[in-house]
Order: sequence, then structure tokens, then C-alpha cells
Amino acid sequence: MSSIKSLDREEPNYFGAGPALLPTSVLQEAAYDLIKYEQSTVGIGEISHRSKPAIKVIDDTKSNLIKLLDIPDTHEVFFMQGGGTTGFSSIVYNLIGNYAKRNNGKIGKAAYAITGSWSKKSAQEAQRLGFNVDIVVDTKDLKYGDIPPYSQWKSISKDTAYLYVCDNETVHGIEYKDIPTSDYLPEGVELVADMSSNILSKKVDVSKYGVIFAGAQKNIGIAGLTIYIIKKSLIEQPTDDELKSYGIPLVPIAFHFPTVIANNSAYNTIPIFACHILKLVTAKLLENGGIKQIQAIDEEKSKILYEALSKYPTFYHLPVTNPKYRSNMNVVFTLPKELEDKFIKESTEKNLIGLKGHRSVGGMRASIYNAVSLDSVKKLVEFVNEFATNNA
Amino acid sequence: MSSIKSLDREEPNYFGAGPALLPTSVLQEAAYDLIKYEQSTVGIGEISHRSKPAIKVIDDTKSNLIKLLDIPDTHEVFFMQGGGTTGFSSIVYNLIGNYAKRNNGKIGKAAYAITGSWSKKSAQEAQRLGFNVDIVVDTKDLKYGDIPPYSQWKSISKDTAYLYVCDNETVHGIEYKDIPTSDYLPEGVELVADMSSNILSKKVDVSKYGVIFAGAQKNIGIAGLTIYIIKKSLIEQPTDDELKSYGIPLVPIAFHFPTVIANNSAYNTIPIFACHILKLVTAKLLENGGIKQIQAIDEEKSKILYEALSKYPTFYHLPVTNPKYRSNMNVVFTLPKELEDKFIKESTEKNLIGLKGHRSVGGMRASIYNAVSLDSVKKLVEFVNEFATNNA
Repeated sequence: MSSIKSLDREEPNYFGAGPALLPTSVLQEAAYDLIKYEQSTVGIGEISHRSKPAIKVIDDTKSNLIKLLDIPDTHEVFFMQGGGTTGFSSIVYNLIGNYAKRNNGKIGKAAYAITGSWSKKSAQEAQRLGFNVDIVVDTKDLKYGDIPPYSQWKSISKDTAYLYVCDNETVHGIEYKDIPTSDYLPEGVELVADMSSNILSKKVDVSKYGVIFAGAQKNIGIAGLTIYIIKKSLIEQPTDDELKSYGIPLVPIAFHFPTVIANNSAYNTIPIFACHILKLVTAKLLENGGIKQIQAIDEEKSKILYEALSKYPTFYHLPVTNPKYRSNMNVVFTLPKELEDKFIKESTEKNLIGLKGHRSVGGMRASIYNAVSLDSVKKLVEFVNEFATNNA
Repeated sequence: MSSIKSLDREEPNYFGAGPALLPTSVLQEAAYDLIKYEQSTVGIGEISHRSKPAIKVIDDTKSNLIKLLDIPDTHEVFFMQGGGTTGFSSIVYNLIGNYAKRNNGKIGKAAYAITGSWSKKSAQEAQRLGFNVDIVVDTKDLKYGDIPPYSQWKSISKDTAYLYVCDNETVHGIEYKDIPTSDYLPEGVELVADMSSNILSKKVDVSKYGVIFAGAQKNIGIAGLTIYIIKKSLIEQPTDDELKSYGIPLVPIAFHFPTVIANNSAYNTIPIFACHILKLVTAKLLENGGIKQIQAIDEEKSKILYEALSKYPTFYHLPVTNPKYRSNMNVVFTLPKELEDKFIKESTEKNLIGLKGHRSVGGMRASIYNAVSLDSVKKLVEFVNEFATNNA
């Protein structure tokens, strides 16, 4: 078998939005570990999630994340199965439960800022599950192309448990560049951020957040696992009987934060292979200089790509009209509709893969996550220039 | 890198209970596919879950399962993230919802048969979530060592949506060998079975079940994915508003059966690598003769192991006292407590790995899932004989 196939590959120029590109060296190491892991006679996917080597994978991944994001002692890191969707469902139960615990059974409101399709889905889910949702901003009328200043958002009442934002909207390519301070956010209202598509791409002041969560399969791993970083004071829950008496629905046990945390993310069977990949990706980031280094590269990548697209304003259109909020991860753009197929065809011929926009918005999208090299982006820039020159 | 490491391994003699052994050839193929999948420039874990190759992985896996288990047209196959725990949580919401849909908003009861720790956890979760649970049998007083005949179970009232059984209790090593017929199960009460640790080990008459589900990580894959086989008439749900008016809690959207099924198991991001492994495992089973062939081997394996243990009745003790219900997958046994460490030490020296029992029950457990070869079991039998002879 090994005489025909190999674990080598030509470095891909791959711009898929997720599941997304991972470092080849990480995948190679994971491939070997899938067959035989360290001193075991079997591979990493075959060992008990409560065995010593599995616990070490979990602990090492946590420790890498703590180092990379400089996570303070006030916060806890844990993992659960699922992605963004299970994330936003489980957060509303747990945070409303915790708010009730801290406020004599009072049911808090959940504030949502809608800046694209993911924050919209999150708010809809909280409403669907029966929680009391307050939409404080919805940029639909701006076609999700800008974020108004916090001073223009609806004010948040003090009986609100948390404000939920999607820090980077993968579909619409819009990313926050600052977070609400005490001018906007009342004391005691916690900030919750979905960072599924931009975690570990930039420095974040974790102390400012109640919860940060991120599905692994965009910037840092394969599908199946979600990272949670939670302020420790937000973990505790009322008893099940108390929740019932308050009229707060109970979260399925696999997503009950105190249970998951008390069991070191292995109450139920953690997908240990997915966690192992996350460990390898984070270890590699640390080796390569940490967040500061990757952030500089990510910023350079998005800078040269947006600059190229902006050179042809009558040909390429950037739906995120405010340059400040253009995503460093998902560069969304359109071009004349009749040339879209040609753009995809010719880019594919040059081995620039995965540029088609999300089915819900159309156009093009270049996702330039951490694993996408500056070299790949330079090749894309060259093509962007060439295509405009030949077709404008 | 490839000059030092290799994708070969010595065939393990591995008896871990889950995550568990997988065929080496499957892992090798998956390892190559992790780096570069078919015509893609990237690996199977890096492609969109809605791309053609990903959809083909999902469809092929479904098709393999339909062939292997002879699943009739009356039933639908789908996948969701998670394992047994997310499985038993999501089933109660969906089946009680469906019952209400078919019965003018009436809230049905959920009957549970407790024959070990997994069925116990399932019943507790349904109760915890606020559903109306009826325990029809609990074999705790039999130390989960036998299953009384259905005629001795509590009768099931007609306003019951389903009867839940755990077909094979992984921790206690007890497995059903027949299923309740119309003598016991009233018409319209659906049979739900957790087959997480014995799916694809034996022929099953799927038409008799309302739902069969199985976490992949024991007999057929790595952790992160669960298989569901559901009678099509049980899929439909009331609207969210109807559910609220009935007082039935809503399931998180990622576990709402109609939504998952309408999106071909990719409403949210399916862990496509885990699904790919499942596809490879099921394809290999088909190649090797299907269920009939594997069932014959599995029965032979458990037969020789139980026979060996039974030869030394004053030395080895089998907690499942009724031989009929001894699991073909998880062979649980004890020996004099003071010799346990020695047994583990000496078996490990012979490269017989993973024999320690579950922390909640102690003793020994040899999990002899599909991927464990008859040869491995013969080596274990030899050791079982030798250890008794030397120490009895």
C-alpha cells in the first residue's frame, strides 16, 4: 500500500470556508498517530477517552490555548462535541440558568446583535427554545455591510444576562474590530462571542468576555469539537428542580456546563482524534511565535487581497462597505454575474480552489485562515489582478 | 518524516471497550485520505460538508448500512454528532413530540427497561428533562446479571410513546437475545434500542424497531458520530408553537430529527472524517461477506472465551448469571481481587491490552468487537487458561 500512496501533497492553494485547510505537517503527524499512538499498541482514535494518554491530549490542548490566548485564571477552558450550532444552543440554556442562580431565580433576558447569518441563527434559536430575546441591533438593512457604533444600538436593560455577538461572520465576511465597553454594556451583562471562524487569528483580551466559543473546523481543526472559554463565575447552575420551578428549560446533559467541566470535557466520549488535531495545530502556532506572529501574517494576507480587489472598484465589489469591519478571515467579493463561472473556472485551472461564495449570498469568498499561506494569497492576488485586467 | 515513521503496525490484541479497535487497513486508508482525498487538493477533513465528495461519503455510508442491515424502505438512516448520551437525550424529545403530533397534542409516556448502567442513564435523563417516565423493569436487584421474561415486566399502558432498551450494556456485559413481541408491547408503542456497542455484530429485524441508534466509537468507527435508523412515520414533529402549547420542551435545533433529515445529515457540520471511517468500516464488512459472516465469527469468539472462563467456576466469576444473556461483545468477569493486578500485569506482558473492567464495576472486561480477530481471542483464551492453572 505504502509503495503506491504517500503522505505527501503539493501545498494546496485552498480558500474553502470550512471545514478548511490545515497545516500539512499536522495532518501527517495525525495520520501516523491514527495507526499507532506513542507507546500504545493502537491509534489515537482507538483509546479510551478516560485513559492517561487521552487525558493528556485534552490537558495539553487546554494548556496550549491558555498560553496562546493568555487566558487568565478567572476563566475555564473546556470542549464539547458539535460546532457553532450546538454552541449557540447550549449557551443560552447555561447562561440563563446561571443568571437565575445568581439572581434568586430571576429569568434574565438574552441580548443579540445581528450582523450576519450566524448571529441571526443564534438569536432565532434562543427565541425558538423559548428564551426572552432582545435584538439590540440588526444590520439587515445595511445588507450586513457595516456595523453601526454602539451608541446607536438599542440600550441594554440591566435584567439582561448577556450580549451575544458573532465576532466574525463567515458568510458575510464582516468582523468586529472593537468590543463594547462599559459605555454601552451595563455592569453585570456578560459579553458572549462566537469566534468559530477567527479564533487564534488575533490577540483577544479574554478577561472582557463572559464566554468565547469556537467550532474547531474553520481556523484550527477538523469538524466535531468546539472550544469554550468561560468566566468561572458563570459556570454554576441551579439544581434541575430549581430550574423547573423557575420555568427555565433544561439543557441536554452532554451540554450542561458544570457536568462537562467537572469531568474534564470527558463526561461523554470526547472525539479524541479531533482534539488531538487541535493540540497539534495549537502546538505548531506556539512553536511559530504564537498569536502575535500569526496575526501579523493574517493581517498582511487580508491587506494585500483587499488592496488588489479595491484597485478595480467598477469590476470587483466589496459588500462590506465599511473597510474597518472587513474580515481578516473571509474576504467576500462579487464581480459581474456573467463572469462568475469564468472566474471559478480559470482560478481552478491555476489550482486556486474553493473561491465560490456561500450559496445564500452568492459571489466569491476567499477564506484565508491561519493555515492559508501568504504565498497562496499572493497567487490569488496575482489572479485577481490578471482577471480584472483581462475582463474589465 | 516517512523515513522514520510508518503506517504499519503489529496487529494489536486489544480489548478496550470504546473508543475501540478498528481494522488496520481502514485506518491506513483513512490516514492517506486525511492528507489528500481522491481528486481534491486537500484531505477529507478539510472539505466542505456540503461539497459533492462529502455528500457522497454520507450517501455511501447510508447505502452500506442499508445493505448490511437490510433496512426496509419504511425506515430512514441519518447521522448526528455525539454518541450515546446525545442520542438518548435527543430521542426522548423527538419521540414524545412525534407522539403528540399523531395524538392531537397528547403527551405520551416513555417506558424504560433498566438492565445496566446505560439504560439507567437514559431513563434518568428523560426524567431530568421533565418527561413522564415509566420504569417497566429494573434488574438492579439481580445485579444486572439476568433479564426476567417480559411476562414479569410491568405492563405498558397504551398512552406510551415508546419502550427504550439498551440492547447491549457495555459496562455490565448483558445483551438481549430476543425482543418484546405483541404479547408484551401494545400496538402503537414503538421499540427504541441503543445498539451503540453491538450494532453490525448480528442480524437485526429493523422493521420491528421504531428507532435504533448507535454511537460509532465502539464497534464501527471513531468517536463523534451517531447512527440513527428511524421508522419514517416517527420523524414528523409538531411546529415549535404547537410544542410550546402542549408543554413539551424543544430539542436544540441540531438534534431536531426533521431538520437533520431534510438536510441529509448536514444541517450543521457533520464530522466528515468520522463519517468517512464509518464508510470504510461498513464497506469492508460488505466485502467480507456482510453481517452473516461477522456474526458467525463474533459468536465463535464469545463462545470460546465464555467456555474458557466457565472451566474454572471457582476462580473466574461471570456476573451475568444467565448464560443466555451474556454479551457477545463485552465479556465481563471477575477473579480473586488480590490477583487482579497480577492478571493485568501478566496479560499486558503478553500484549493482551485493555482488559480492565469499567471503573464503576471493577473486575475484568474483554471487549471483543468486530475488529478484534478470532486469533486475538484465542490468545486471550490461552492466557485465561494459563492464569487459572497457575493461580487457582
